[in-house]
Amino acid sequence: MRKIKLIISYVGSNYNGWQKQKNGVGIQFYLEEAIKKATGEEVEVFGAGRTDAGVHAMGQVAHFNTNSKIDAQKFYYAINEFLPDDIKVLSSCEVPEDFHARFSAKKKTYVYKFYASEVIMPLFEFDAVRVNSKFDEKKAKQALKFFKGTHNFKSFCSSNTSVKSTIRTIFSIKLKRDKKGIYSLIVCGDGFLYNMVRIICGTIVEVGLGAINVKDIPKIFESQNRNMAGRTMPAKGLTLQKIEYKE
Amino acid sequence: MRKIKLIISYVGSNYNGWQKQKNGVGIQFYLEEAIKKATGEEVEVFGAGRTDAGVHAMGQVAHFNTNSKIDAQKFYYAINEFLPDDIKVLSSCEVPEDFHARFSAKKKTYVYKFYASEVIMPLFEFDAVRVNSKFDEKKAKQALKFFKGTHNFKSFCSSNTSVKSTIRTIFSIKLKRDKKGIYSLIVCGDGFLYNMVRIICGTIVEVGLGAINVKDIPKIFESQNRNMAGRTMPAKGLTLQKIEYKE
Repeated sequence: MRKIKLIISYVGSNYNGWQKQKNGVGIQFYLEEAIKKATGEEVEVFGAGRTDAGVHAMGQVAHFNTNSKIDAQKFYYAINEFLPDDIKVLSSCEVPEDFHARFSAKKKTYVYKFYASEVIMPLFEFDAVRVNSKFDEKKAKQALKFFKGTHNFKSFCSSNTSVKSTIRTIFSIKLKRDKKGIYSLIVCGDGFLYNMVRIICGTIVEVGLGAINVKDIPKIFESQNRNMAGRTMPAKGLTLQKIEYKE
Repeated sequence: MRKIKLIISYVGSNYNGWQKQKNGVGIQFYLEEAIKKATGEEVEVFGAGRTDAGVHAMGQVAHFNTNSKIDAQKFYYAINEFLPDDIKVLSSCEVPEDFHARFSAKKKTYVYKFYASEVIMPLFEFDAVRVNSKFDEKKAKQALKFFKGTHNFKSFCSSNTSVKSTIRTIFSIKLKRDKKGIYSLIVCGDGFLYNMVRIICGTIVEVGLGAINVKDIPKIFESQNRNMAGRTMPAKGLTLQKIEYKE
């Protein structure tokens, strides 16, 4: 029995999220079906991050166990044969028995894309979300430093969460603007609570719009009250970019 | 009677091209319908470039005549009210009576996007086309200089064209690669023949793949035979980026 690690990319807007859902199948299901067709085995695929409906992935990671003799480095070819064009495995390799896509992850990077415009930009709408044209980049950037480090992020997660601890560490958080005017909020952390990146981004956007005063961010943390933070940005602006493991 | 100029962006993959088609409506039709709803007038909208089905636009230009009293600078708001989210007017202004979106155009810029990969990259596929991973950027770049300047582009247009002259001028042609690995072929010229950008891009890609020898490009021009040039790249990689007029 070998353990295979996969790096996967998908267009989230076409699917109902990573996980099997009560009201439909998730991306996980498509992978399990494709592996079944490639190997004849019924496998369970474990993903590193359970992306919501609409959230994209550039570098989702998953693992599964197999008795198949397919070369680990070439396994992704065999799986891709049976996947639609908007879900593809980018690479595959064998990993030690104690590797777990979710529990072994050390760093996760998410990117949230938005643009500030009074008009909808049709070609930006595929994976970026429009905000009010009054958005002030300099103001927004003043908010970034408050999120870096180890904090209790209870105010920045959706309340329907059942995790034991709401303490997380953000290693880096950057806001970049490309030539076209699309902003990318790039957040790297040890893990994220439910909707955490989308709520942090919403809070930073509201600071940029003047709806939240940057000085009030420490109070928002202290309140441990989700209603104090900014809006939850829509799913389609979010991409799970990268997951890193111990060397 | 005033003449209004519009700058328009749209997602080409959702439509059957710019022009009214025998087998369906074009983007032009959506604009005419939206203007009718905004002004009550039946107008004809004249576009600068008749983009094919699947081709995107970031800066298509069009004009129409109106007796409406809507402020020219704010006209686009009124039109956008009645347009779907994947077609939007980005700005509007009044132009002199002798302005014509198509015939007054001095420069047109198209961008063709592609990426070289052995695997389909789901998040690139919205507006970029995959080519073989053996693509060699340096080799491809050697081909660019042959296209710059005034030439007879008969070998680089689809044969079902009925234009009088196949002589066109390319002012600049560049190939850039972004951090993600997506190539943009940016071509600025005084006008383009049917499928010309897509065939030039196909020829440059084939030079990069070693299927066409860069030394043979002058012979391809001389032959005036479309079959000598490279493949016609798919529509979805092409974007009409910008149209420039005399100051």
